Amino acid sequence: MTVTKWNVRAGAYYDSVVLMQLQRGLLGLSGVVDAGVVMATQANRDLLAANNLLPDSISANPDDLLIVVKAKDDSSATEAIGKADELLARRKSSTVSEDFRPRSLSGAVKQLPEANWVLISVPGRYAAGVAREALELNKHVFLYSDNVSIEDEIALKKTAREKGLLVMGPDCGTAIINGIGLGFANRVRRGGIGVVGASGTGTQAVTTYIHALGAGISHAIGTGGRDLKSEVGAITAHQALDVLARDIDTKVIVLVSKPPSDEVAMKLLTSAQATGKLIVVDFIGYSPPSRSLGNLHFAASLSEAAGMATSLAEEQILHNESSNYQSPIANHYLRGLFSGGTLAYETTLSLQALLSPFFSNTPIKESQRLIDPLRSQGHTIVDLGDEFFMVGRLHPMIDNDLRIRRLRQEADDQDVGLILLDVVLGEGAHPDPASELAPVINEIKDKRPEIEVVVIVVGTDTDPQNLSLQVEQLRAAGAIIYPSVDAAIDFVARLFHQAPRSEDTPISLAAFSNPLAAINVGLESFYDSLVSQGAQAVHVEWRPPAGGNEKLASLLARMKK
Amino acid sequence: MTVTKWNVRAGAYYDSVVLMQLQRGLLGLSGVVDAGVVMATQANRDLLAANNLLPDSISANPDDLLIVVKAKDDSSATEAIGKADELLARRKSSTVSEDFRPRSLSGAVKQLPEANWVLISVPGRYAAGVAREALELNKHVFLYSDNVSIEDEIALKKTAREKGLLVMGPDCGTAIINGIGLGFANRVRRGGIGVVGASGTGTQAVTTYIHALGAGISHAIGTGGRDLKSEVGAITAHQALDVLARDIDTKVIVLVSKPPSDEVAMKLLTSAQATGKLIVVDFIGYSPPSRSLGNLHFAASLSEAAGMATSLAEEQILHNESSNYQSPIANHYLRGLFSGGTLAYETTLSLQALLSPFFSNTPIKESQRLIDPLRSQGHTIVDLGDEFFMVGRLHPMIDNDLRIRRLRQEADDQDVGLILLDVVLGEGAHPDPASELAPVINEIKDKRPEIEVVVIVVGTDTDPQNLSLQVEQLRAAGAIIYPSVDAAIDFVARLFHQAPRSEDTPISLAAFSNPLAAINVGLESFYDSLVSQGAQAVHVEWRPPAGGNEKLASLLARMKK
Repeated sequence: MTVTKWNVRAGAYYDSVVLMQLQRGLLGLSGVVDAGVVMATQANRDLLAANNLLPDSISANPDDLLIVVKAKDDSSATEAIGKADELLARRKSSTVSEDFRPRSLSGAVKQLPEANWVLISVPGRYAAGVAREALELNKHVFLYSDNVSIEDEIALKKTAREKGLLVMGPDCGTAIINGIGLGFANRVRRGGIGVVGASGTGTQAVTTYIHALGAGISHAIGTGGRDLKSEVGAITAHQALDVLARDIDTKVIVLVSKPPSDEVAMKLLTSAQATGKLIVVDFIGYSPPSRSLGNLHFAASLSEAAGMATSLAEEQILHNESSNYQSPIANHYLRGLFSGGTLAYETTLSLQALLSPFFSNTPIKESQRLIDPLRSQGHTIVDLGDEFFMVGRLHPMIDNDLRIRRLRQEADDQDVGLILLDVVLGEGAHPDPASELAPVINEIKDKRPEIEVVVIVVGTDTDPQNLSLQVEQLRAAGAIIYPSVDAAIDFVARLFHQAPRSEDTPISLAAFSNPLAAINVGLESFYDSLVSQGAQAVHVEWRPPAGGNEKLASLLARMKK
Repeated sequence: MTVTKWNVRAGAYYDSVVLMQLQRGLLGLSGVVDAGVVMATQANRDLLAANNLLPDSISANPDDLLIVVKAKDDSSATEAIGKADELLARRKSSTVSEDFRPRSLSGAVKQLPEANWVLISVPGRYAAGVAREALELNKHVFLYSDNVSIEDEIALKKTAREKGLLVMGPDCGTAIINGIGLGFANRVRRGGIGVVGASGTGTQAVTTYIHALGAGISHAIGTGGRDLKSEVGAITAHQALDVLARDIDTKVIVLVSKPPSDEVAMKLLTSAQATGKLIVVDFIGYSPPSRSLGNLHFAASLSEAAGMATSLAEEQILHNESSNYQSPIANHYLRGLFSGGTLAYETTLSLQALLSPFFSNTPIKESQRLIDPLRSQGHTIVDLGDEFFMVGRLHPMIDNDLRIRRLRQEADDQDVGLILLDVVLGEGAHPDPASELAPVINEIKDKRPEIEVVVIVVGTDTDPQNLSLQVEQLRAAGAIIYPSVDAAIDFVARLFHQAPRSEDTPISLAAFSNPLAAINVGLESFYDSLVSQGAQAVHVEWRPPAGGNEKLASLLARMKK
């Protein structure tokens, strides 16, 4: 028969390392069978219950500390509970040179004026306040703490963006800046691959695999898991991309995240395209628009992202396209008139990720459905073989009439800059489609020479239509020919490529090229880790305002104003 | 000033080739500026309107034929309308040897008893009836017609499945059986790659690219675009996979479709896995669970699918796993206890596509959300670093207590057959995680030796924890170690691999190995194409029941019963 005893301490602040050490201390006492030392949140109470460590009669608030001991007899339990204070004190005395430590951020800055980064790992409810202070002191922030509200995150990131500072996090587990790991980070070779990671272990896995493949990391910038949500709008990811794009030592950039919202993804991919650098994208679980789009390469897993980045870096492929190139039709619309449903769908899948506003009669998302299949809007892909058009009419692979009429209709629209067609050869199809389509393409190019006409021709050298004759006729009419959707989209994506523009205050590259110097607020182990890596660092002997008494703290804050 | 005249013909049936030819005939007459010959559906009326060919005063039903002529003067317009009958008759007489043609399916079967396929391309409203008749005559069906109801599709496919017959379609554009293209099909080399295509041009593109890469096609089986919807449940795709799996000439199978519903995808991938053959999957726009899972390889585009299939076929990789292998834990549950959120997410992404029922506290789909994060259900992945667990507690990369308790909890569950962990090394993490985890793994393996413990270890050779020492300790405790999620999932997928089971009546391989002989009902051009490819074929001089008069037809049908 075991005996369970407990002790509740109201509203006091305890470092989570202290709590872990207290629990271990209790478990080490004679007669103790199990012990739990937790803040009394519902989740933690449920966890205690799952371990048979929650007596029915405990009443405690989420801010209270709960110490529970299960022992083999009453006296052991009582004795253990009684030793809690002694164990807490023992931990205290083990920390040396505490007297020299600053007790505030501003004190730490006086001690280490060259500090360019502040690492924050205090409990969530205090973290935003510390981060705000760090930004006021013009420091970049690595915000490890979780349980920070999204409103605080947005406010902090907007302030940071205005000042040309980075806020990595909240809930940012990992970063590597100028060779020094912040938070959880693996020791990896330095090299030409930069990482922008909205996920901590994602960044750890990718940097680890890159190291194993013999390549190295320039910088790995964390954003926190919520950065790519619509509300935050990937503020940090955009800043990180920009700074890595300007960093000459970064040759390839890996972008790792859970799938962002469509709008955020589109903006981020557009920015990534505009950097002109080689970018490997792993939006884990995102349907890539294709395997690659210009300078963007899409990976299906963390290990593949590492592999792709390593080979791109090794091959030293130079992406020749100037990032300031803008084609004359970049601000016009694309219209795709397809006979093949799947070709239309594959094209739609790629383009809807890059072009906006985008519509189709066979859309990927309902919000992109063309209101009237007979009238294009914005960028449009129409599947002319859709059932809607097919009552009493031959398929557009056999009868070109519908497509020819629509071709003329699109060319009359002054907003149109590119028309995309497919021509599918083979058994059953029109015996000579180019003979009917080429004259219309010719007519369009005569009337509006600026319009690009791109044709995807699917067929074999043994098809009855004579593939090369078909291609020749279309090319002579002024069309650009591709054999597959992938190849055509790659071309189209470059034409509609937008020159980069950013109103953000750029981040000075100094924070990335100067030796890393940092102030640590929170988990002492992060400070130890910085020092062991040879970085200059100061640890703040932080306590929450008013010792964690929130009523008193808010009173003090009000008095300050 | 142009003049528009029109003529409405009520409720009669016209072949769409006839309509196209009539329109072209009218356009060729002197004084005619434009002409439209369409069934008077709303879509077609809108199309006429878009071409300024729809006078306000026309009243017609969707089943009516609408002939509209725009001419430069009144007399030309009147004359053209008057010539419609003559033009229709002219088309008639151009077809030779009509007298020898059967006028019914059963008549055609008498003429070509060895026919194993029936091609149907009559208008949608008649198509299901013809298909039903073909199945009654024990013929496989290639159903090109669109605008067939989904109820008819389901009924036809269920009948076919019971009889060991295939219904490709409705709206099936493409198939290649034993070297002969049906419908729209490119002329491609024969070879070892089979295709199951839910999309016509998808199949055309893939087979074309395979041909261009020097490889060839065994058979390409179409399913129709709706086959992979939940309502139909991929009946045809499952049959097609099964028949290609049994066909010894097919070495690699390509599966092409728009993304199916999750449930259909899971069943189809499970069947595909169970075939033991190398399978390339291109569910266009689907987020692949990873680049490959055992014998399944995921492509991101049609051209990539062709490339992958070609290299797999060339490399002659022999997939050694017997398709009847079943591991002792195949009917147990997997439990993943992760410290890394992204590793948990990547794992969840892969496994939720393969295992059911599946749950997680950080799910991809809300329906897979774990009700209580403290208690696993079915197959479960838990991210122990989620905010929920983190109030006043150190991250599980630093403090192993939470995970150790959960490890014991899972091992006590008799339904559990595999436990998956991650161990992330590096700065900031626990200095020796294996020293705490290995003893628990040991304890579990002692108690329940049948449980597999798989550990993903992420770290570098320069990390402070000593990577190889960590791996050694874990391995000595009985764990199986992998460096990445991909590699671990590949192993796990094989263990949970289900032996194939099917209650379908298998399709006789004879229909695929005997020379193709077919009956064609509908578009005559498909018959011409069969003959030009050297296939035996009979064209049915088909007319709708009661000449297209539906009231009379339903009366006749009722009298038959």
